[in-house]
Amino acid sequence: MDRKTFRVLENYMLDMMKDSAHDSLHVYRVLCQALRIARGYNEVNQDILIASCLLHDIGRMKEFQNPKLCHAIEGGKMAYMFMKELGWNEEDCTHIQDCITTHSFRTDNQPKTLEAKILFDADKLDVSGALGIARSLIYKGQVGEPLYVVDEENKIYKGQKLCEPESFLKEYYFKLIPLYEKFYTEEAFKIAQKRKAMTTMFYNELLDEISIGDLQKLLNFKS
Amino acid sequence: MDRKTFRVLENYMLDMMKDSAHDSLHVYRVLCQALRIARGYNEVNQDILIASCLLHDIGRMKEFQNPKLCHAIEGGKMAYMFMKELGWNEEDCTHIQDCITTHSFRTDNQPKTLEAKILFDADKLDVSGALGIARSLIYKGQVGEPLYVVDEENKIYKGQKLCEPESFLKEYYFKLIPLYEKFYTEEAFKIAQKRKAMTTMFYNELLDEISIGDLQKLLNFKS
Repeated sequence: MDRKTFRVLENYMLDMMKDSAHDSLHVYRVLCQALRIARGYNEVNQDILIASCLLHDIGRMKEFQNPKLCHAIEGGKMAYMFMKELGWNEEDCTHIQDCITTHSFRTDNQPKTLEAKILFDADKLDVSGALGIARSLIYKGQVGEPLYVVDEENKIYKGQKLCEPESFLKEYYFKLIPLYEKFYTEEAFKIAQKRKAMTTMFYNELLDEISIGDLQKLLNFKS
Repeated sequence: MDRKTFRVLENYMLDMMKDSAHDSLHVYRVLCQALRIARGYNEVNQDILIASCLLHDIGRMKEFQNPKLCHAIEGGKMAYMFMKELGWNEEDCTHIQDCITTHSFRTDNQPKTLEAKILFDADKLDVSGALGIARSLIYKGQVGEPLYVVDEENKIYKGQKLCEPESFLKEYYFKLIPLYEKFYTEEAFKIAQKRKAMTTMFYNELLDEISIGDLQKLLNFKS
């Protein structure tokens, strides 16, 4: 890809994400990670990969405005139209759309091409390790969800059941831990395994620190 | 303290913190931690300690409404009045006010009595380790501040200078790390030292994960 085309795609991405300035840092991290993973594969179509990485989250705003929509599917459609307008051929536009449609962890669409697999893995790595914990916690703050919740007897919901209230502990069980099972490239899998230790260590220490024991016993009321 | 008095103070605390439901979990953690630290000191006035812990953050709402106010000073005044109305004697009411006034890390007021020192330490422990990281990140999300910021050349601000933009990395340098130097009781100091490892390890791993290197080199534009 030449510098000029990159700038056009980059500006479109920044334009689509202007309501959440810091999400563009995520896009650049994913792009860098993807380019590093791609080094292990001679057959990668670098142009498709760069375009897909840059545009993979442009559908976020649509999902935010209407939570029934999936940002991956919407972003895929938007990217197809944008690339088409830029004059890219049908095959490449469809390829980019497919990469974006299948990048989300939460849908059942599996990435099929090498470029789609690399984007998927690079995006998942950005939710692994300390970064994944940090991004999840900041998100919880943004949407007003708590670190953890207690029941009427002050027992901590550990987040292991779908019926429990939303919290960071639940996010840990349903997103931060399962993601380590789902990598398509060997390089990403290796990086992820290294980072997994931080994720579990953080959770265990956090649980230990918030488990305050029986307040009633400590208070030891006389009457 | 008897159960009935405890409930009166607890209800006042819950009433003062109703806008931030999850902050009451912080209050219970601080109370439990303080009672555990207190076990090492026969001379602790348990009633003063329990009242001070329960009421230490009741001034938060006032600080939130007017950021020029200090929640510790406001909370101290409110607690004094409340305890006075409950019929507690002048000496005890002043003692509780002092404990609350000096609990904040951000003011220059140093805790003087044993109960004030225990409250200070228990409150600081709640910002140590994984819990401190988690609470800081959720707070950053709530107030719309980012994990980190980059300059115009995409270099990460590491948060080590006061003039840098607000971010979690800055919070790490100016709050999460300095707090380990400021403990008054041996028991709290010991717990804090154990937790410090998680704080620094998390920061180092996070910094490593967000340091994506030179995107331009990876892109290697042809023109």
